[in-house]
Amino acid sequence: MTASTLARRISAAAALSLLAACASEPPIALKDMGSFHVGGREVLITGKPVKEVVFTPGGVPAKVDPNGLYQVEQMYVQYFIPARQRGSLPLLMWHGGGLTGVTYESTPDGREGWLNYFVKRGWAVYNSDAVERGRSGWAQYPDIFPGEPIFLTKENPFERFRIGASGAGNYNKDPAKMKTLPGSQFPVEGYDNFTKQVVPRWTTTDPAIIAAYTALVDKVCPCVVLVHSQAGQFGLKVAQARPDKVKALILVEPAGVGDATQFAALKNVPILAVYGDYIEQDSRWPQMKANGVRFLDGVKTAGGNYEVYDLPKMGIRGNSHMIMNDRNNLDVAAVMQKWLESKGLYR
Amino acid sequence: MTASTLARRISAAAALSLLAACASEPPIALKDMGSFHVGGREVLITGKPVKEVVFTPGGVPAKVDPNGLYQVEQMYVQYFIPARQRGSLPLLMWHGGGLTGVTYESTPDGREGWLNYFVKRGWAVYNSDAVERGRSGWAQYPDIFPGEPIFLTKENPFERFRIGASGAGNYNKDPAKMKTLPGSQFPVEGYDNFTKQVVPRWTTTDPAIIAAYTALVDKVCPCVVLVHSQAGQFGLKVAQARPDKVKALILVEPAGVGDATQFAALKNVPILAVYGDYIEQDSRWPQMKANGVRFLDGVKTAGGNYEVYDLPKMGIRGNSHMIMNDRNNLDVAAVMQKWLESKGLYR
Repeated sequence: MTASTLARRISAAAALSLLAACASEPPIALKDMGSFHVGGREVLITGKPVKEVVFTPGGVPAKVDPNGLYQVEQMYVQYFIPARQRGSLPLLMWHGGGLTGVTYESTPDGREGWLNYFVKRGWAVYNSDAVERGRSGWAQYPDIFPGEPIFLTKENPFERFRIGASGAGNYNKDPAKMKTLPGSQFPVEGYDNFTKQVVPRWTTTDPAIIAAYTALVDKVCPCVVLVHSQAGQFGLKVAQARPDKVKALILVEPAGVGDATQFAALKNVPILAVYGDYIEQDSRWPQMKANGVRFLDGVKTAGGNYEVYDLPKMGIRGNSHMIMNDRNNLDVAAVMQKWLESKGLYR
Repeated sequence: MTASTLARRISAAAALSLLAACASEPPIALKDMGSFHVGGREVLITGKPVKEVVFTPGGVPAKVDPNGLYQVEQMYVQYFIPARQRGSLPLLMWHGGGLTGVTYESTPDGREGWLNYFVKRGWAVYNSDAVERGRSGWAQYPDIFPGEPIFLTKENPFERFRIGASGAGNYNKDPAKMKTLPGSQFPVEGYDNFTKQVVPRWTTTDPAIIAAYTALVDKVCPCVVLVHSQAGQFGLKVAQARPDKVKALILVEPAGVGDATQFAALKNVPILAVYGDYIEQDSRWPQMKANGVRFLDGVKTAGGNYEVYDLPKMGIRGNSHMIMNDRNNLDVAAVMQKWLESKGLYR
């Protein structure tokens, strides 16, 4: 059958149904998805006494020899490659402290998060769990990790993440009784589920985390890196170490900064810093925001450029520290998408 | 423009390119993807002394109050819903001990795993991290979890998972020097990466794990449940508790069994047990396989039905305990797919 014969044989109805089928392309069309671990090191433990461990409560103690070679400080990364890539570079998402890559997946109340948003717009997204969090695993302490892990109570993030006002009694198990900040966009009915996303964390593992992120950048970049909170310092420090590979940085409420002796390393890396609402009245965030902006001013003085999106000043109000979980999370994603487009990183 | 006018305007070339576009549908077409946590409970810790914790090595000790309400024993679940669902029911994948849902993602040498295989064939897949593993988080011990976590050395799974022959010196850091079992299908060049997938585990958390899996089944089933190794007992016990919701069970090398006082609960649940190679010569697996088959015989006596796929007897040779990671992993997936089709669970 020749092409022209074929064309003639396509009836009007068939052509229309063909068009309809193509138009109803699935919302998420992927060329590939998968995961890998990157980085880490090996630690040999020797000379330890064999321990007696009770494997099951009430059971007979069993001998466990803790000596041997251990794999530690590797990092888990999950990737989604769209069928039609429109982001010019891969987009890496790095979560904040006490959390995992779940931060960027579905919101705690079950809406779409930033991972889906950017994959749907054609970005190849690499979402990771920092060293010692989530699927990256963690190492025995104090033998390998110095110090103890920190566990957060359910109430802890409520005020600290600018969801509820400060003061006893504002957090409540019953969402209807929680006293949130006026106009808060945090989906308070999902707060309980949000606390299920919290994982133990160490405060002594920054060098290992930075080493693993650097290994990731060496593996998959050039790229754009989007970071949140604790990962602010990781994004800035890794970009300072690999300024040829990190082509743009989005800092979502960074809680820490980079190396102030290496401002010039970032002079060719466009940087966007995004801050939510209720910062002025907070006990900690005015200082953290000032630290962030002061660092970026240093980068600017060294020849770089940055923008700060102060969301309330742009008319986007009510955002907590968990902007990617807030009810207007996709409005903020759209603002970041536009910034990426303005930097020529989208086709 | 009417439909007939439209049809006439489609040139032969355009019609062909339209057909080509539709034919080149992306390999992974999803209606939705996302994640959630399920289950868990709250624990109030009171009366503990405030501790001094050194947050940064060499830093000033800070006071940490460990008292408060904690969220524990929740479970992380990630889901992928194909645009065109052909599996009649959702397919739940439960990993083995010391591992996470990463088991079913890319293989340690970077090929496609069972998650992609079944999603591509139109199954809605729910892949989870058991309680206290991966993105499910873990609770402080001994205050909440009884007992200590177990850490595996890099060498530990090499013989135990029937990759290498037993004996000192068969494991080697250099893949070229590893002595694998003759004809092994395990991708030994990815063994080092496989050890990065290993996470700490407790041996005291079975009831919490079963409670979370039961909560998952209550949330998303009726379904098919596919389990591996340690999860053998979880799949069987949860199916015994919810026989109306677990419509089929695939047990991949189950290391444990269900409740032998409740065989009849499984009489309407078709069960497939799959075993790999090198079992007869192993020090532990002949007994574990015999335990599994004896349990399934009990189910059969109570009116149920099961099949055992002894892969080497079917001509599929060389499989380790990590069948989903082996080089022929998709051949085994195809065998399981056919079994599911034979049970009327595919359309």
